[in-house]
Amino acid sequence: MTSASNTSATANKPRIVIVGCGFGGLEATRALRHAPVDITLVDRTNHHLFQPLLYQVATAGLSAPAIAAPVRHLFRRQANVASLLGEVTSIDPASRQVLLAGGMALPYDHLIVAAGATHSYFGRDDWAPYAPGLKTLDDAFEIRRRILLAFESAEKEADLEKQAAWLNFVVIGGGPTGVEMAGTLAEIAHHTLSGEFRRIDPAKARIILLEGSARVLQAMPPELSERATQQLQKLGVEVRLNAKVTAIDANGVQVQPAAPGDVYTIATHCVTWAAGVAASPLGKQLAQSLGLPTDRAGRVAVEADLSLAGHPEISVIGDLAAAKSHLGGHEPRPVPGVSPAAKQMGRVAAANILRRIAGQPTAAFRYRDYGNLATIGRNAAVVDVATPAGHLKFSGYFAWLFWLFAHIYFLIGFRNRIVVLIDWASAYWSKQRYARVITDIDKPPHL
Amino acid sequence: MTSASNTSATANKPRIVIVGCGFGGLEATRALRHAPVDITLVDRTNHHLFQPLLYQVATAGLSAPAIAAPVRHLFRRQANVASLLGEVTSIDPASRQVLLAGGMALPYDHLIVAAGATHSYFGRDDWAPYAPGLKTLDDAFEIRRRILLAFESAEKEADLEKQAAWLNFVVIGGGPTGVEMAGTLAEIAHHTLSGEFRRIDPAKARIILLEGSARVLQAMPPELSERATQQLQKLGVEVRLNAKVTAIDANGVQVQPAAPGDVYTIATHCVTWAAGVAASPLGKQLAQSLGLPTDRAGRVAVEADLSLAGHPEISVIGDLAAAKSHLGGHEPRPVPGVSPAAKQMGRVAAANILRRIAGQPTAAFRYRDYGNLATIGRNAAVVDVATPAGHLKFSGYFAWLFWLFAHIYFLIGFRNRIVVLIDWASAYWSKQRYARVITDIDKPPHL
Repeated sequence: MTSASNTSATANKPRIVIVGCGFGGLEATRALRHAPVDITLVDRTNHHLFQPLLYQVATAGLSAPAIAAPVRHLFRRQANVASLLGEVTSIDPASRQVLLAGGMALPYDHLIVAAGATHSYFGRDDWAPYAPGLKTLDDAFEIRRRILLAFESAEKEADLEKQAAWLNFVVIGGGPTGVEMAGTLAEIAHHTLSGEFRRIDPAKARIILLEGSARVLQAMPPELSERATQQLQKLGVEVRLNAKVTAIDANGVQVQPAAPGDVYTIATHCVTWAAGVAASPLGKQLAQSLGLPTDRAGRVAVEADLSLAGHPEISVIGDLAAAKSHLGGHEPRPVPGVSPAAKQMGRVAAANILRRIAGQPTAAFRYRDYGNLATIGRNAAVVDVATPAGHLKFSGYFAWLFWLFAHIYFLIGFRNRIVVLIDWASAYWSKQRYARVITDIDKPPHL
Repeated sequence: MTSASNTSATANKPRIVIVGCGFGGLEATRALRHAPVDITLVDRTNHHLFQPLLYQVATAGLSAPAIAAPVRHLFRRQANVASLLGEVTSIDPASRQVLLAGGMALPYDHLIVAAGATHSYFGRDDWAPYAPGLKTLDDAFEIRRRILLAFESAEKEADLEKQAAWLNFVVIGGGPTGVEMAGTLAEIAHHTLSGEFRRIDPAKARIILLEGSARVLQAMPPELSERATQQLQKLGVEVRLNAKVTAIDANGVQVQPAAPGDVYTIATHCVTWAAGVAASPLGKQLAQSLGLPTDRAGRVAVEADLSLAGHPEISVIGDLAAAKSHLGGHEPRPVPGVSPAAKQMGRVAAANILRRIAGQPTAAFRYRDYGNLATIGRNAAVVDVATPAGHLKFSGYFAWLFWLFAHIYFLIGFRNRIVVLIDWASAYWSKQRYARVITDIDKPPHL
């Protein structure tokens, strides 16, 4: 086991380790830019991923580099940060060390754990090979590969029944990712691929969105869920509510509709899993070692200031934290797993470290809710903005424009913004998607 | 075995199958755009790859979609083309069928085989895992992954000797690809990564270009080879001529220098293979089935009109063809394996099919040599343009500009040109490379 520390003359500065370079870790690191501290930012990838646009990579609308900024490039001028590519295997609060795969140990005085979430199959991990989720760039490539190969396979298939199965696309889960994926798949089938095939009509592809509950976009007000469903249907998506998935294999998805109704199977070779999210396993490991509880999604219970009970030197933020906050004077409520919340937590955790260093009391986290927005597809989105005068809700074309500019504004890195804007402008007018590259071509289409 | 044909009412039109959608196949297909024929264009990928810029994807300068255009999109408005994704396993000249993996058979009246070339390890395929070549997008991702992970691994390595090995980059082969790779690696080490690491200095990376013969860029006039070597050295590349590789494994490359000299080993975990090219195995299969010879690189001997002896209905073009042509009044000489030659052959093969359909004699292929150009790195290139007044040779900044605009001009698709131009302008001024995404992060760095 080797011990790593910044080799420059910073031996007496407080050592801060930040695990994860998602929205929370990135914001915490930035918030410490003027502090006389020694930060090690460790992530299992070399890039900060702008996850809200990951579905665009999965659906061939954007290239991967457009939404992935190299971490060490982002912090090249922040001299107090050393960026490290590594997989954190465990945290040892007793010796105050973060342990990496390969044996490296990172000692810390203050720790921020922002390891995020992954998709969860609710105990059915055997479904994973047939229904990839969408959390990383590799996930997005895999889904893109399956979508594009399904159309190619349909074009080659002479048997009409088998051909129809290749043209069935199932998205499981009606949250923001599921809605975006389904809407964009409909756009691909109806617009992008129009006129490009000779034996099949891509517009005959069926896009089926399965949602287990009674409405899509549960985080939204019910009327916007209703609007979203209408907009999805207008785009050509079959929205099936109260539809529980009971089995998935290489040939299809078995569905249990709301009672009364018989179990049925949809023949398909292209399934996207957008149904479940679970906190990174690192949360459970850390919580267990400290005897702290995790919630059903594996998130770690945190104090009001985002630190762990009995361990003020450890903060847990973002999707890994089961944080609660007062929202407009009500009882404390769970903070949603969205990027603005992660960024806000990152800033608070960083500020609390500085307060502790200065011997001051830490501050409680208060979530500021700016609202919620979700895109559905071409010219279609729903927006719920929190304003001092109450919530402003709208949908359709202007909601889509609002969503578009909000996302481009928050994209990391100036170059990315310009390129994404050009890509989208060209995609919008041409109805084309330029990133239609199938990689890993030798793998079978549906596995 | 199923038999495929265009389902539209084209039963009486001549059926043309074109294998491969590189420069040759693409150009042949385009040349037939007004012909009353029924074309099936089959390729093992779904995109036309602009191979001259593939090294930019391998070195994180461009994203994959910038140089890869979906084949069926390119031909969406050419109604006589059906594009098919498939791996051709063999050609049966007797029954006039192209056979695909999976059992599909494509019957043809006229066939153009443009299956291209792949890299060759000269019988040492055991070197492949340690020294990936650069022919496909997946190859480029693999090389990009290894380059970026080598720097990341060096940053984590406390042992100075092991650290130095991670910072040794070996490129084998001093042809255009090897020279581009070595020059760009030097640019990455000296400019792109500058200031981003805390424990290592990326500028201390050694880029070693090994060439077995006495000069780089053998297709160029000797004085330009000399200039290229000087420019490489100026960029920080160690150019080793007359250096034969005798072994490659996970830990290094063994080199036999020109006699007298002792065999030595370069410790490295990042080796790029740019030494050998061999024709697609399909060429050998086809030639053997017809009793025709192939040359040392596996290319098929073709007649003056690019057809095969005794089989005027089959043309072989591009890197797969051992074609000869008169060049400025001399004896017929081998046509070089470059994209302008492949495009010219594609046009001639297409025109000859139309002549045969019309009952006219076919025309011989005459290669028109426009010259040769190779880029080396930032502001560095060599150009040898054939003009009516003789060859014009120049190097350095203006050669680089010439190379740049020539390549952007020939890029397929208007969007790609704009995006590549923006990417390069921004890369040039910022000295940055934006496509620094490591995918397949769970694979070991050097395997």
